Amino acid sequence: MGKRILIVGGVAGGASVAARVRRLDEEAEIIMFEKGPHVSFSNCALPYHLSGEIEDSNKLILMNPAKFDKRYHIEARTNSEVMTINRTKKTITVKNVQTEETYEEGYDYLVLSPGASPIVPPLKGVDSQHVFTVRNVVDIDKLNQFVQQQHIKNIAVIGGGFIGLEVAENLAYAGKNISLVEAQNQVMAPFDSDMVQILHKELIDKGINLVLNDGITQVEESQIVLASGTKVAADAVVMAIGVRPETNLAKEADLAIGKTGGIKVDHNYRTTDPAIYAVGDAIEVHHKITGAKTRLALAGPAQRQARAAADHMYHIPHRNTGVIGSSGIKIFDLNAASTGINEKQAKAANIDYDFVYIIPTDKVGIMPESNVVHFKLLFEIPTGRILGAQAIGKGNVDKRIDVIATMIMMNGTVEDLKELELVYSPIFGTAKDVVNQAALVALNILNGAIKQVKVSEVRELVESNAFIIDVREKKEYEAGHVKNAKNIPLSEFRERLDEIPTDQPVYVHCRSGQRSYNAVASLGNVGYEHVYNISGSFLGISLFEYVNDKKQAREPIVTKYNFK
Amino acid sequence: MGKRILIVGGVAGGASVAARVRRLDEEAEIIMFEKGPHVSFSNCALPYHLSGEIEDSNKLILMNPAKFDKRYHIEARTNSEVMTINRTKKTITVKNVQTEETYEEGYDYLVLSPGASPIVPPLKGVDSQHVFTVRNVVDIDKLNQFVQQQHIKNIAVIGGGFIGLEVAENLAYAGKNISLVEAQNQVMAPFDSDMVQILHKELIDKGINLVLNDGITQVEESQIVLASGTKVAADAVVMAIGVRPETNLAKEADLAIGKTGGIKVDHNYRTTDPAIYAVGDAIEVHHKITGAKTRLALAGPAQRQARAAADHMYHIPHRNTGVIGSSGIKIFDLNAASTGINEKQAKAANIDYDFVYIIPTDKVGIMPESNVVHFKLLFEIPTGRILGAQAIGKGNVDKRIDVIATMIMMNGTVEDLKELELVYSPIFGTAKDVVNQAALVALNILNGAIKQVKVSEVRELVESNAFIIDVREKKEYEAGHVKNAKNIPLSEFRERLDEIPTDQPVYVHCRSGQRSYNAVASLGNVGYEHVYNISGSFLGISLFEYVNDKKQAREPIVTKYNFK
Repeated sequence: MGKRILIVGGVAGGASVAARVRRLDEEAEIIMFEKGPHVSFSNCALPYHLSGEIEDSNKLILMNPAKFDKRYHIEARTNSEVMTINRTKKTITVKNVQTEETYEEGYDYLVLSPGASPIVPPLKGVDSQHVFTVRNVVDIDKLNQFVQQQHIKNIAVIGGGFIGLEVAENLAYAGKNISLVEAQNQVMAPFDSDMVQILHKELIDKGINLVLNDGITQVEESQIVLASGTKVAADAVVMAIGVRPETNLAKEADLAIGKTGGIKVDHNYRTTDPAIYAVGDAIEVHHKITGAKTRLALAGPAQRQARAAADHMYHIPHRNTGVIGSSGIKIFDLNAASTGINEKQAKAANIDYDFVYIIPTDKVGIMPESNVVHFKLLFEIPTGRILGAQAIGKGNVDKRIDVIATMIMMNGTVEDLKELELVYSPIFGTAKDVVNQAALVALNILNGAIKQVKVSEVRELVESNAFIIDVREKKEYEAGHVKNAKNIPLSEFRERLDEIPTDQPVYVHCRSGQRSYNAVASLGNVGYEHVYNISGSFLGISLFEYVNDKKQAREPIVTKYNFK
Repeated sequence: MGKRILIVGGVAGGASVAARVRRLDEEAEIIMFEKGPHVSFSNCALPYHLSGEIEDSNKLILMNPAKFDKRYHIEARTNSEVMTINRTKKTITVKNVQTEETYEEGYDYLVLSPGASPIVPPLKGVDSQHVFTVRNVVDIDKLNQFVQQQHIKNIAVIGGGFIGLEVAENLAYAGKNISLVEAQNQVMAPFDSDMVQILHKELIDKGINLVLNDGITQVEESQIVLASGTKVAADAVVMAIGVRPETNLAKEADLAIGKTGGIKVDHNYRTTDPAIYAVGDAIEVHHKITGAKTRLALAGPAQRQARAAADHMYHIPHRNTGVIGSSGIKIFDLNAASTGINEKQAKAANIDYDFVYIIPTDKVGIMPESNVVHFKLLFEIPTGRILGAQAIGKGNVDKRIDVIATMIMMNGTVEDLKELELVYSPIFGTAKDVVNQAALVALNILNGAIKQVKVSEVRELVESNAFIIDVREKKEYEAGHVKNAKNIPLSEFRERLDEIPTDQPVYVHCRSGQRSYNAVASLGNVGYEHVYNISGSFLGISLFEYVNDKKQAREPIVTKYNFK
C-alpha cells in the first residue's frame, strides 16, 4: 500500500504538492481538500477579469477535479472544509460545506496549504452587499457581476498593494471612476518613497483619485467616510488592505505559530509535528538577506516550498535558500518590479547600505521604442554585496530585476554586477546595460569617487540657498529648472570653473544623471572637495516633487516639471 | 603636464577609453584618430536605417568631434588614418585621408581600437558597384541610397550571421525580395541545429528565399551564381559573411598576434608593448567557460575592455572575468538570444555536458499575450554547472538569457537555478519561470530520473519502428501526429498500461513536454526501465522536421506539422 497524503488547500501550494508527490510515487493516495468550489485557479490573474482582459472567468480555473483524477490520479474534494486535526490518531475531520455532513480521514502525511484571507476591519457598514474582497474566482465573479449589473460608476478600492492596484487599474480600464485609498503615505510598500512617486503620478495621470495618508472608517450606501472626515463617492467598495495567514487549524492542533503570525516550519517545511508539513502564504519563512523571519504571499516561493515538502517525504534532500521577495506589477503604462530589500527594510535590519538611483534609457536611445527606466540599487557598505533593487518604466524592467534577484541569490557584489555580460542588441537594451551602469556608479560611491544627495533632500537645499549647478544645455534649463540653480552647461563647464565656489558645498544635476556624473568627476579631479551629485537629477526631482506639491498644495521648487 | 593618450579608432572601444580617461584625469591630453568621417556611431543599429525604423541616418551618429571637444575636452580627428607606430620613439604617423598630408604625434599611451572589417572574398564581379558591405554609416547610406534610387527589388544577402539577418529583415520590411545565402547548413552559429530551425521557419514564412549549404562564387549584373550552379536574382548584393580583425598596424609594429588572429593582450588589455593597449573586435580574449582564446565582435565586452584599459593607466585594479558571448537578435516576429556555449562548442572543448529543451509559455497561459518560448539549457556533467542557453520566442526571451548569463558569470549550477526567486506577475511570466522549469528537468536528468532523446533522433526512431507513445488527447493526435506513434492520452494512461511493452524501449512525447514528463515519471515509478522522453515533444519535432522536409523534399515523419 502507498502512503496516504492529505492536503488542506487546493490552490498554488496544495496542487503543487499533489502533483509532485504523484511524479515521485505512483502508489500514493493523494487527496486535496478545498473549502471553495474550485481547485487550482490562478489567483494572480483574478483582477484581469474585471477589465475583460480575461473575458471568461472560467478560464481562471486551470484544472478541475475530473482532470486531476484522470491525469494524475489525484482526488480533489471541493466544498470540503477541514475542521480539525487529530494528531495522535493522525486523522482530520472534514465538513462538506454543501451537505454539512462531516467525516474523518486518516493520513500518513498531512500538508497544510490554507493560504491567507483578506483582512476586513470591523467598520460600520463593512458587511453591506456592496463591499467586496478578492481572493478567489467566486469573489471576482461576484464583484464583476455586481459592477456590471448595477451599472456601478463610482468604486473605492481600499489598499494600495498588489491586489488593490491591479483591481483599480482593471476597473478603470472598464470605464469606472476609481478612488484608491491608502492609509500609508505611499502605495506599493516594496518601493522606497523616491521611486514610488513615479507610480503615484501614473495613477493620478490616468484619472485615479489617489487618497494617501487616510483610512476608511465607515461604509455608507453610496460613499465611504475617511478618518480625516473626507467623504468619497463609492457605490461599490473593494477591501484590499492586506491578508492574514489562515492559521486556525494549525493553532487548534497546537502546532507552533511564529512571531510573524505564520505557521512555524523547519528547513523542510515540516511543522512542529513531523507528520505535518505547511507551505504557502500561511507559513513564516527565512529572509535570505536580513536573516529575519517573515511572511511572503507570493506564488513562486509557494511552489518551491511545495516541491521541497513533497521531496522530503521521499527523502530527497533540498537546499533551503530563504526568500528575497521578488515581485512585479503593471500599473497602466508602467511596469514596476523589485527584489531584495529597500531602504526602509535595510534600516530596520540595521544593515549599513548605500544606494544608486539612475535614469538611463532601456534601449539604444535612437530606437523608436526606447524609454527611460528609473532604477535604484541598494548595496551593503563596505562589502558591496547587492541587497535589492527597484525598477520602474514603460519597457522591460522585470528583466533588470530578475538579473539583480539572480545576483542576490548568488551572493553577488556590485563588482560582479559591473562585469556581467548580458544580451545586447539595440532591440533589447544598451551595450552597457542598466544594471552594469548602476554597478559602475555604485563602485564610484564605494570607492569614494562620488558623493551624492537624494532627490528628497533637494527642497531643503533650495530653501537654504545651497549652490546648485544644472549642467544641462541652456534650452533645457529654460524649459524648466530648479529654482536658484545656476546653469553651467557641461559644454561650457571647463571655461566657467571660476563661477563655481571652492569654499562651500556644490550640488550638481543634469537631466538623468549622466552629464552631472562627468561634471562631478571633473570637479573632483581639479581639486573641489565638497561636490555632490544629485541622485535622480532633474527627472527625479520633477517626479518626486510633482505628487507632493499636488497633494500638499505647496510651492514648487522647480519652475516647470519635466518627466521626459 | 598631463599624460598624452592617443587612440586609434573612434567607435565603441575608442570612444569609451577616451571618455573614461577624461573622468579619471582632467589634465590628460586625449586624441582619437578615426579613418572614416564619423566617430561614435551606433554600429549595431545600422541595419534599422534600411527599413526606415531609424529614418535619418544622421541619428546613427551619437557624438561628433565638436561635442567631444565641448563636453569632454577630447579631440576627435576624423578622416585620419594611423599609418605606422614607432614604438621606440613612441610616436605614430597619421595621414589625413582628404589632404593626403601625413604627420607625427607622440604618445605616453597608445590605445588600439581599430575594430574588424567585413570579409569580401576575391570573387569574379565582387568589385561591382552593386556589391555592398555594412560596417559604418557611410556604408549604410550608400546601400540605402542605391536601393532606393535604383528602385532595386531583388537583393541577395550573403551570410546568415547577425548583420546578414538584420539587413535581410530590414530590407524585407522595406518591401524588397530577399535571398539569404549561407554556406553552412544553418544561420546564426550561436544556436544549435535543433533550435535554429525555428529561425529558418520564420525566415521562410516571412518570404525570405533561404539558401543554405551553398556559397557564392560569382557576381553578375542582375544575379549571383552559387557553388551548386544555382542562380539567384540580385540587383544588389550585401556581403556579410564575417569580419576580420584589423591587425595590420599591430603586426607592422611587431606586436604579438594570437593564434585566433586577434591582437594578443594581457589581463589589463596591454599588448606586448606596455605602452600600447588594445581593445574591441581586433583583440583575442579569454573564454570564461572553455578557457580558450577566442574573438568576439560585441559592443558590451568592448566597452568593458576600454574601461579596464583606461583604469590600468591610472593604477586602478580590474578583475578580468573573461567573456561568455551573450547576444540577441530580432528576426521578424521572433526574438532570439543566447549565452555561453552551445553543443558544438561543448564538444569542441571536450566538456562533458547534457541539455534540456523545453517549450513552456512565457506568461500565464490565460493571459492574452502569452506565447511559447523554446528554451535550451546546457549544463556540465557531473557538476551541474551551467554552460549556456538559447531561447527563441515572440516574448521576453532576452530576460531568460540574461538570467542564465548572470548564473554563468557567478558560476551557478542547475541546483542554484532551480531556487532562483524571480519576478512573477501574470503580466511578466509564470510563478515557476522558464529558467526554473529548465533547472528542474536538468536535475531530473542529472539524478537519472529521466532519460531523453533529441528531436533530431525521432526520424530514425520512426523509421526503425520504435515504440513511440503520444500522450496528448485524441483530438490533438488526430490533428497531426508522428507516424507509427501510439496515442495513449495521459488521462487514460493508467488504465492502458498493458498496451505498453516492458521488453523494449519506449519513447514518450506530448505537445510541449509537460504531460510526457508526467507519463515518463509514472512509467518509471511502476517499473519500466527503458523509458525516454522525446525532448522538444511534438512542437519541437514539427519545427525540426518542417524546414528539413522542405529543403530536402523528403517524406515527412508526421501526418501534419503543428507549431502552436
